[in-house]
Amino acid sequence: MNYLDELDFNDDDLIPAIVQDIETDEVLMMAYMNQEAVTKTVKTGYTWFWSRSRQKLWKKGESSGHLQQVEEIKLDCDGDTLLVKVRQTGGACHTGYYSCFYRQLNSSKKFEATGRKVFDPDEVYGEK
Amino acid sequence: MNYLDELDFNDDDLIPAIVQDIETDEVLMMAYMNQEAVTKTVKTGYTWFWSRSRQKLWKKGESSGHLQQVEEIKLDCDGDTLLVKVRQTGGACHTGYYSCFYRQLNSSKKFEATGRKVFDPDEVYGEK
Repeated sequence: MNYLDELDFNDDDLIPAIVQDIETDEVLMMAYMNQEAVTKTVKTGYTWFWSRSRQKLWKKGESSGHLQQVEEIKLDCDGDTLLVKVRQTGGACHTGYYSCFYRQLNSSKKFEATGRKVFDPDEVYGEK
Repeated sequence: MNYLDELDFNDDDLIPAIVQDIETDEVLMMAYMNQEAVTKTVKTGYTWFWSRSRQKLWKKGESSGHLQQVEEIKLDCDGDTLLVKVRQTGGACHTGYYSCFYRQLNSSKKFEATGRKVFDPDEVYGEK
């Protein structure tokens, strides 16, 4: 059986992929893969996703250089979510934070930025 | 601004919530919350989800006793995914594994169970 047959893609032919840092164990981001993105991720050893907003395949870090080298790929019990453990270059979030989950609900019930900022997005992506 | 206003629910009025163990940093599961599940999770300090298959709200661990006590709630950059860090009782997966992500793609490109089994589901949920 091909490993792809074990994946339960959703109605949009996508599967959510959680990306976790293999060194720090931080959850870095979640994005969606279609079958081609999964195949390219497995073949190339770097993460590829399907952009729902741009409707195209993208390689994480292609423009920023902040690549994610794949170390482990895990599948959950019902086959509808992937967990990809990676070695992250730079930072995962386009805002400059190391993880996309940089905001935390505080005791006043407000989301507050508590994450680590590791790069200046203007320098990496250019001023907009 | 209410914290709920920062959440970007999808077309089904759901938001994916990644659950991570605060002690071991393992990613335990991913499930979906609607607004009521988020509110109950924040108010009660235990995880609540929306079951898409059963179309009902459920409290994790309600029948098994394997509750998830909420320690931190994080939100990603685009507000469409939650990360909930919890103190897990028992195991997170209904199959008896500690994490739902107990299968890993091996070098032969097969998913192989590599996770820790921590309980017997027949004992916890009863023989089916």
